[in-house]
Amino acid sequence: MKTVLAWAPEPFPDIRPGDDLLAAIVAALRGAGLAPTDGDVVVVAHKVVSKAEGRVVDLRRITPSARALALAETAKKDPRLVEVILAESKAVRRVRPGLIIAEHRLGFVCANAGVDHSNVGLGDDVVALLPADPDAAAARLRAGLQEAFGADVAVIVNDSHGRPFRQGTTGAAIGAAGLRVLRSYVGEEDRYGYVLRVSTEAVADEYAALANLLQGQAAEGTPLVLIRGLDHRGEGRAVELMRPEEEDLFR
Amino acid sequence: MKTVLAWAPEPFPDIRPGDDLLAAIVAALRGAGLAPTDGDVVVVAHKVVSKAEGRVVDLRRITPSARALALAETAKKDPRLVEVILAESKAVRRVRPGLIIAEHRLGFVCANAGVDHSNVGLGDDVVALLPADPDAAAARLRAGLQEAFGADVAVIVNDSHGRPFRQGTTGAAIGAAGLRVLRSYVGEEDRYGYVLRVSTEAVADEYAALANLLQGQAAEGTPLVLIRGLDHRGEGRAVELMRPEEEDLFR
Repeated sequence: MKTVLAWAPEPFPDIRPGDDLLAAIVAALRGAGLAPTDGDVVVVAHKVVSKAEGRVVDLRRITPSARALALAETAKKDPRLVEVILAESKAVRRVRPGLIIAEHRLGFVCANAGVDHSNVGLGDDVVALLPADPDAAAARLRAGLQEAFGADVAVIVNDSHGRPFRQGTTGAAIGAAGLRVLRSYVGEEDRYGYVLRVSTEAVADEYAALANLLQGQAAEGTPLVLIRGLDHRGEGRAVELMRPEEEDLFR
Repeated sequence: MKTVLAWAPEPFPDIRPGDDLLAAIVAALRGAGLAPTDGDVVVVAHKVVSKAEGRVVDLRRITPSARALALAETAKKDPRLVEVILAESKAVRRVRPGLIIAEHRLGFVCANAGVDHSNVGLGDDVVALLPADPDAAAARLRAGLQEAFGADVAVIVNDSHGRPFRQGTTGAAIGAAGLRVLRSYVGEEDRYGYVLRVSTEAVADEYAALANLLQGQAAEGTPLVLIRGLDHRGEGRAVELMRPEEEDLFR
């Protein structure tokens, strides 16, 4: 019987700029008695990746541009925060009071281009950006975990994204290494021999969603989840999940 | 340590119009030695719900309207299929060759208003619609499972939806009973005492995504998944996941 297990090892230490995130992940897994095996997926909340990379900004050091001031007026947001959002974005897609939906320079379309106050813990004026290159961060963590545990594990860096049409956020893979992020069924037969023509499943986002269920966002939250039971090993990267603008009907 | 387990009991029988889906689910769980307990979530692929309900259409009996013929020309689709899609929709949101993104009468924005050939198995000309009332179907299955197993289980009816911005489909809850589908963190503190202001997690969609990972869409696929380890019991319904049109910036 196909079975999936997922664990959220705790405690996980506070991560600050410059900390060794790989060492913290290895210690947390070992401390919980978990040893990743071939095909397992380790999901890490992007916030700790960003913090370890020093991808945090103290808003007290930011002087908003005229463009940021104008957008902040429309969005009813702190102009310094808007300046940071604009610096992270290649386009602003939608704005209304309280909300800026931007296209991050890496292609993710999400609220505030991923710039966020929560679970940063470096003072009220310090926000976290997305990791500089989440796919590269996932690849580095994967190499380190493979060395530590001698197993072919995949790594996903996840975030929570809102989406059009539907309420609430779900986990999304913004970095990946060691798995095929998209699983195509095109050309395969269904249960009855009908040949599937269009089905491609975003498995990396589904792993990210499962991890999100365990991570939580509040005080008891933890950034690390280990998933076992499926095997989607491959060489995908999360940028493959970005739908090209010219193919997107809703941007 | 927070842990999630998910099982996809097999074999699951072929479901045909009029079959007793609840009995099939109970038998599949029992056959696999699985007894749901309080807080568990049973996820059922919508296709078997639709088929049990007889929500299937033989395209040979359909005469396309002028509107369907025109849209079929643009979308390069079978006009009879387009007629069925239009009958299921309250609006067509985007069209291009090979693709109709419609708003189903229940509010889901998805390809073909959920009308689908795959995993129907009643002949090449027979398509399945979404269940008539997926929340009600979930509630009925929930009542039956509670009686069969004496446990307070939740039920989700899931589908695979494409989404703007990102490639591939992910599991989505189109029916739910016995759980809070949205988990708000608003007003709670994060790890560092920062009060969260906007975070609401679509937990029902994340359960649906996990189930999707196990269900698959090809010949070896199975419609039934049992999930254990979290407890989001409540009285939510999947229609709560529909973002009202006036609040949606991308429709």
